[in-house]
Amino acid sequence: MSDVAAPGLFDRAIRRITSAWRDVAGSPSRDEDDSIAAQIRACLEGRGGEVSARYRAAKLAQTYLALDKAGRIDFLRTLATFDSDPAVVAKAYEVVGEAQDPAERAAATSALRRALEPPRMRLLMQFTTIPDGMKFIVDLRGFLLSVTRGEDGPEPLLMALESDMRSLLASWFDMGFLELARLDWSSPAALLEKLVGYEAVHHVRSWRDLKDRLDSDRRCYAFFHPSMPGEPLIFVEVALVAGLASSIQKLLDTRAPVLDPRAADTAIFYSISNCQDGLAGISFGNSLIKRVVDLIGQEYRNIKVFATLSPIPNFRRWLDEKLSAANAPALLSEEEGASLRTAAPIGGPAPETGTQALAAILAYRGWWRDAPMTRAAEPVLARLCARYLLSEGRGKRALDPVAHFHLSNGARVERINMLADTSDKGLRESAGMMVNYLYDPAQIEGNHEAYAGEGRRTASTTVRRLARGWGG
Amino acid sequence: MSDVAAPGLFDRAIRRITSAWRDVAGSPSRDEDDSIAAQIRACLEGRGGEVSARYRAAKLAQTYLALDKAGRIDFLRTLATFDSDPAVVAKAYEVVGEAQDPAERAAATSALRRALEPPRMRLLMQFTTIPDGMKFIVDLRGFLLSVTRGEDGPEPLLMALESDMRSLLASWFDMGFLELARLDWSSPAALLEKLVGYEAVHHVRSWRDLKDRLDSDRRCYAFFHPSMPGEPLIFVEVALVAGLASSIQKLLDTRAPVLDPRAADTAIFYSISNCQDGLAGISFGNSLIKRVVDLIGQEYRNIKVFATLSPIPNFRRWLDEKLSAANAPALLSEEEGASLRTAAPIGGPAPETGTQALAAILAYRGWWRDAPMTRAAEPVLARLCARYLLSEGRGKRALDPVAHFHLSNGARVERINMLADTSDKGLRESAGMMVNYLYDPAQIEGNHEAYAGEGRRTASTTVRRLARGWGG
Amino acid sequence: MSDVAAPGLFDRAIRRITSAWRDVAGSPSRDEDDSIAAQIRACLEGRGGEVSARYRAAKLAQTYLALDKAGRIDFLRTLATFDSDPAVVAKAYEVVGEAQDPAERAAATSALRRALEPPRMRLLMQFTTIPDGMKFIVDLRGFLLSVTRGEDGPEPLLMALESDMRSLLASWFDMGFLELARLDWSSPAALLEKLVGYEAVHHVRSWRDLKDRLDSDRRCYAFFHPSMPGEPLIFVEVALVAGLASSIQKLLDTRAPVLDPRAADTAIFYSISNCQDGLAGISFGNSLIKRVVDLIGQEYRNIKVFATLSPIPNFRRWLDEKLSAANAPALLSEEEGASLRTAAPIGGPAPETGTQALAAILAYRGWWRDAPMTRAAEPVLARLCARYLLSEGRGKRALDPVAHFHLSNGARVERINMLADTSDKGLRESAGMMVNYLYDPAQIEGNHEAYAGEGRRTASTTVRRLARGWGG
Amino acid sequence: MSDVAAPGLFDRAIRRITSAWRDVAGSPSRDEDDSIAAQIRACLEGRGGEVSARYRAAKLAQTYLALDKAGRIDFLRTLATFDSDPAVVAKAYEVVGEAQDPAERAAATSALRRALEPPRMRLLMQFTTIPDGMKFIVDLRGFLLSVTRGEDGPEPLLMALESDMRSLLASWFDMGFLELARLDWSSPAALLEKLVGYEAVHHVRSWRDLKDRLDSDRRCYAFFHPSMPGEPLIFVEVALVAGLASSIQKLLDTRAPVLDPRAADTAIFYSISNCQDGLAGISFGNSLIKRVVDLIGQEYRNIKVFATLSPIPNFRRWLDEKLSAANAPALLSEEEGASLRTAAPIGGPAPETGTQALAAILAYRGWWRDAPMTRAAEPVLARLCARYLLSEGRGKRALDPVAHFHLSNGARVERINMLADTSDKGLRESAGMMVNYLYDPAQIEGNHEAYAGEGRRTASTTVRRLARGWGG
Repeated sequence: MSDVAAPGLFDRAIRRITSAWRDVAGSPSRDEDDSIAAQIRACLEGRGGEVSARYRAAKLAQTYLALDKAGRIDFLRTLATFDSDPAVVAKAYEVVGEAQDPAERAAATSALRRALEPPRMRLLMQFTTIPDGMKFIVDLRGFLLSVTRGEDGPEPLLMALESDMRSLLASWFDMGFLELARLDWSSPAALLEKLVGYEAVHHVRSWRDLKDRLDSDRRCYAFFHPSMPGEPLIFVEVALVAGLASSIQKLLDTRAPVLDPRAADTAIFYSISNCQDGLAGISFGNSLIKRVVDLIGQEYRNIKVFATLSPIPNFRRWLDEKLSAANAPALLSEEEGASLRTAAPIGGPAPETGTQALAAILAYRGWWRDAPMTRAAEPVLARLCARYLLSEGRGKRALDPVAHFHLSNGARVERINMLADTSDKGLRESAGMMVNYLYDPAQIEGNHEAYAGEGRRTASTTVRRLARGWGG
Repeated sequence: MSDVAAPGLFDRAIRRITSAWRDVAGSPSRDEDDSIAAQIRACLEGRGGEVSARYRAAKLAQTYLALDKAGRIDFLRTLATFDSDPAVVAKAYEVVGEAQDPAERAAATSALRRALEPPRMRLLMQFTTIPDGMKFIVDLRGFLLSVTRGEDGPEPLLMALESDMRSLLASWFDMGFLELARLDWSSPAALLEKLVGYEAVHHVRSWRDLKDRLDSDRRCYAFFHPSMPGEPLIFVEVALVAGLASSIQKLLDTRAPVLDPRAADTAIFYSISNCQDGLAGISFGNSLIKRVVDLIGQEYRNIKVFATLSPIPNFRRWLDEKLSAANAPALLSEEEGASLRTAAPIGGPAPETGTQALAAILAYRGWWRDAPMTRAAEPVLARLCARYLLSEGRGKRALDPVAHFHLSNGARVERINMLADTSDKGLRESAGMMVNYLYDPAQIEGNHEAYAGEGRRTASTTVRRLARGWGG
Repeated sequence: MSDVAAPGLFDRAIRRITSAWRDVAGSPSRDEDDSIAAQIRACLEGRGGEVSARYRAAKLAQTYLALDKAGRIDFLRTLATFDSDPAVVAKAYEVVGEAQDPAERAAATSALRRALEPPRMRLLMQFTTIPDGMKFIVDLRGFLLSVTRGEDGPEPLLMALESDMRSLLASWFDMGFLELARLDWSSPAALLEKLVGYEAVHHVRSWRDLKDRLDSDRRCYAFFHPSMPGEPLIFVEVALVAGLASSIQKLLDTRAPVLDPRAADTAIFYSISNCQDGLAGISFGNSLIKRVVDLIGQEYRNIKVFATLSPIPNFRRWLDEKLSAANAPALLSEEEGASLRTAAPIGGPAPETGTQALAAILAYRGWWRDAPMTRAAEPVLARLCARYLLSEGRGKRALDPVAHFHLSNGARVERINMLADTSDKGLRESAGMMVNYLYDPAQIEGNHEAYAGEGRRTASTTVRRLARGWGG
Repeated sequence: MSDVAAPGLFDRAIRRITSAWRDVAGSPSRDEDDSIAAQIRACLEGRGGEVSARYRAAKLAQTYLALDKAGRIDFLRTLATFDSDPAVVAKAYEVVGEAQDPAERAAATSALRRALEPPRMRLLMQFTTIPDGMKFIVDLRGFLLSVTRGEDGPEPLLMALESDMRSLLASWFDMGFLELARLDWSSPAALLEKLVGYEAVHHVRSWRDLKDRLDSDRRCYAFFHPSMPGEPLIFVEVALVAGLASSIQKLLDTRAPVLDPRAADTAIFYSISNCQDGLAGISFGNSLIKRVVDLIGQEYRNIKVFATLSPIPNFRRWLDEKLSAANAPALLSEEEGASLRTAAPIGGPAPETGTQALAAILAYRGWWRDAPMTRAAEPVLARLCARYLLSEGRGKRALDPVAHFHLSNGARVERINMLADTSDKGLRESAGMMVNYLYDPAQIEGNHEAYAGEGRRTASTTVRRLARGWGG
């Protein structure tokens, strides 16, 4: 976790808030209990008025930032204890029970809500006044998430704090408050440097690579919050191309010629990254994609198709399990099995089954550059991938998290691309395959309903046929 | 209540949000229950995904704006019924009761909070996506306040809704999110026009008057919220002068020469106005004044004194009651009584007591331009005013609302000024008097504590002596 | 002439330029000739380096601003004497004469140009460093124009200075450097206040009137120069309407409903005003109109017609001369004469001729509200106006200056409107008539060529027929 | 020379200018002479009005950009022939000769100036309307400079054009029109990338190096022109340090800790680069340094010393000539000679004289890391360098161009630093030495006068003593 500001800067910021009030507000802490609990109490009591309280909150934030990991966890545990008063809550709940009619109940319920507002939330609110205070709060939750999920199992006290923070942040970061901005090579270098750090899908290799991703046939959009200027929340990278893209290496080839966007017909969303760990569970992606589809569609009437080129992160793990399961042979038709066995790499024991052959091929370094192997493996991989995307899952939810995200948004599975990502990671996670999810404005609502309601996943005819399989 | 946007504009705004998704999202309402309850339900179900839901919310807002007052009240009553589920709340509360240790209780309490989150708040959140949506929500609460305080007495259902909205708005409009801006003659005309409408203390008579209030020896600062651009929340008008100002008419005289701010030693806060009815109960004034004191102090080292020139809105009402009470004569010393009887206006029955004489003088149109009358009345008025400000009140709270505001902020009562506001309103409400409240950074915290804690009101020696009275 | 800045401000500005260099640069003037000539010399010598010289120029500008009119004229006379050195010029010209070939001549001619660069221009250049220095220079020429055209006839010395300044300003204010900006009700009040002052065609009556001219069915565009921020050079006011506008009073009626611009088909340019006297002779209007036609055409595809509603400032003067000339009767047909005599106002001697009758009608206050009078006068006025616009002139140039401007731009005379401007000024100058000039992009170049080349004026068939007259 | 814009972009730009006028303005060229001369003539005739003429100029610029080097030279030769009319000039000059008094002469001289205005300048002016037109014009002169100084010797025709362009650009780029901007890591990446390209003194090695030069203890300022946004004219890099910097490698060490600027006492200007070849001969450096001194002095009161760390580009060339001259031995004292001979590198013939020894040392790769060699060489090098900076020159002008620049600005030679630049270039050009020039605001004007007037060069006592030499 990186701190929001260097100590010197922070110091200056605090001075800026307070200046004239400094001497006064600064003095109380002289002769007082300096424990974190005491400091929090002092902030919450609001002695000297709201402005003084905010000064104390800034000092407290500074104290936190100076702590090491263990100290910070203690700090958060202390903070978490500033909960609502059980007696007051109990009394308020009693009134709810005694309500004579719905209107009375409504009033009593509203009063119960007030009684439940925990003091610690008031303190968090006070941090907003610090310069970069919002980033401080977001990072606080980010840290909290990293420790509640920690080694010793979940810690209910911290989880309660985290849950309240999530609720507060969800209200503050409602999509109505976000600002959509296009980033390009004219954006501040400091911001672009952050993009490089936050890019979670396809690593940015160099400033040259970065510049290429911001060229005239590319688009990069991000959401920002007015209280966190210069800090992207999420960003998406788009390529304007002719026809559905089928290879990420080709898209990211810095030597490829630049296309005139007026000659493009397709926008490919090839990377989408969340930037703030502390905003986990607050969803921006759906809204971002749709806003960007809208913007690009308005700018270029010639662009009619909006689709992704997406990874299939867990396909290999799923496949490997299948291949090593008892009933593995049922995965393949006889012809497929035969063809795979023939193509399997030489050296080592000859595979007895098609599935063993397939496993051997995938384990063979460079199989994807070997024509016989790919010829044998591709149809099988495509078919199994279609099945993985369309049929596998927990309940109604698709097993693949990326598939789940796009299906929830109302996209459909359009095309499976072989050897679309031949990076080490791409081969390791998805046997080199990638998938296009299609965002067709006219079908989005229906697709979403089908998936969210009955768990029905929409796909193109080709992918559906593939998934139905050899016996289908 | 003024609507947030003309229908045409609104229409366009909605198109902007939705464009590509329009046809789809628009269709469901065709064959459906079109009642407001049904529309709200459709928004909350989120059918078609979040973006579609937001589109429906925009339509719903449009529906609301097209309603008349009675229709809007019905709308709000319907909205208010979308409360949390009592059964779910009861169950969550049960878990709180069963908690074995504080950590468990914390987790259960947090879960109870989630259970209590009312669906209607989710709907309000959806309105943020509409252009000018924040203003829409604020105005919604403004309307709510005007009707819950309505003719037939308070309505618990609407009050519960209002209370939840207050809580939501207090979180969104936390002072950490506000932007302080200086307004001057280079500000947009549209914004300045709004100032004129919102000015609640000293009516702006003309563009000439307005320009004068924004001249180089004046300052005007306002708070804005990033989601309500161009809409001030509160603003303060300041005059940079030499010495404490003692007359509002002199301050607002457009023919008075402009002072070089570098020759000033005092900043007079002579008007502070809240702009948004819908944010009533969420306090900005304290923080605004202190930020502005800070800014001016940094810009002009020569300015050492920060004070207000404030009205005393209820003084006359209080005085009139006192004068007509049975024990009225005790208000005055014998000398005062005699002096007032001598100065009382001729015509009508001669006043028998000093208090009758004072009442007669104050009832006499133009008394303040009559030397004998003012000579007799002024010392008495000053003394009673000091008493009114320093001693009268309900519990610890000062009777005068303006005094309460500034004392809460930590200011002190510095000086009472005779004939300081000789407008009709000034004479009618406060016998022409105004008061300076002094903001001394070194004493603010102590003053605030004294007042907030024990109800002790700080004042200058002169005013304290005055208040002690003739027998003192 | 209004000075560029209050002394205090100026002072501050100078300090800003110089600060650290102040003490040094300030000292020389102590023991020196303080005459204006000496000061100018000091600036030009550049002692202490360019930055010090600029400081002296700022002081010199301050000196100028403190002078009265006579003092300023003296100042300019002194400045004008800092001309190029005749001996050096003569020598340079000799070299031109001795050139052996075109290339040599070119080099010598270029050297001659350098020799002719007058020191006074270097000084003017130095003024650019002063804050608001460009406005200072422009106003200097404005003042110069007002005095070279002064009482005692033209003054060659000042005219030479003025001519050089015009050349310099024409280079600096080339249209490639201008910024086109839309002004509306969100523009700074200070800027809108300037518009009111600069509006030269239809006086702005109030802030209400101004706001109306900036409403959603209006457009106002201005050119600015980057070195004169907040100072418009020229601006045009446009109304988006349905059909060619025929009355300025209707256009400027603040009670008229606002039209949705998407329902408009015509853009009416109803006012265009130059703002800077000091830029007289440097033309912005043609370019402004065409840029605005472009912009509006791009924003609203529904707007197809671009035309003006223009005054005919000298028509009445011309007509009155015609009516009082010896051959006046030939102006009218017999029928016209009879009709006019019948309609002539009662009281005073009965008019003997039609022309006398017309003169009597036009002299009759309120004739334009009298049905018989207007019925008789209108056809005659329309015919004579058409003739005035299309046939009268000096050489190829139209007599009417507004007609000359629009015809030069390539517009055509489209329609003559009766009772189109019934203000006092409108009746006095043009018998209440106004004219629409049509800007048809497809014909502009041809029209311009016809007028600029052969002096041929383009008009609609109707106007051409009218101009051909009663005998036509 | 890099062209101002890719063809596609250019095309679009032209469309933007013209849009509505396109079809018309485009047509004339159909049936016409398409030679460059004819195209220039068409622009100058202004057929179809100024706006159409500008369209033609844009086409012409496009034609130019499509040409190769030879074609561009031809283009410029053709352009150069559009000179003023000799007959008209002769006539105007005659009038000057006949003037009867100074005022008449002034008027006639002014008229002569108008007569001399060459049509080609009008054409250049038209290029300003093109997007990026100013950059186009500047690059045109840049190209012109590169070819007039070309292989076949100077070409008078092109030189005349260049000279006129210089005069025009000097007027447009007057320092009053320039905008000073601070560049830092928040500046647009596209702009920072340009800095890397333009840095002429100390090569930027990487984005890491660049970021380091923009850190909180560094400052980078540049001048921009409003018509060339995003294109720096000149920029300076400054380090805020404690004490005079003596090594460029230490300054540019990316691993060095960042200093809190409030702890600095000295600002070191360590790099200043002109960016636009086409603005050669128009000086920005003096003004830039002084503005930046001012700004930093205002921001940090603690910074009292402003100095450079500058290269001595021609020192080695001068020294090598001296060392190989007949009277070389006179350069050294006997002791110096002996010491150098002792320290001279082994291998090769033993040096007979001290000067030969010095030459041998400097020719020895790595001498600067060899203690005995540096011990012997340093005092001699320092002494000779001081002499080179303070005494060598052509007339009053210092031989070293960097010294000339800073002495002209009024700086003084403060300190010579040994092994201050141990890069290959630094050793090759200046034997690893660098010099601090001190900008002391209190002495700048005097220093400037001394140098500009009598050619007297100011230096610190130490450097003056050094220069006086061993015999001194």
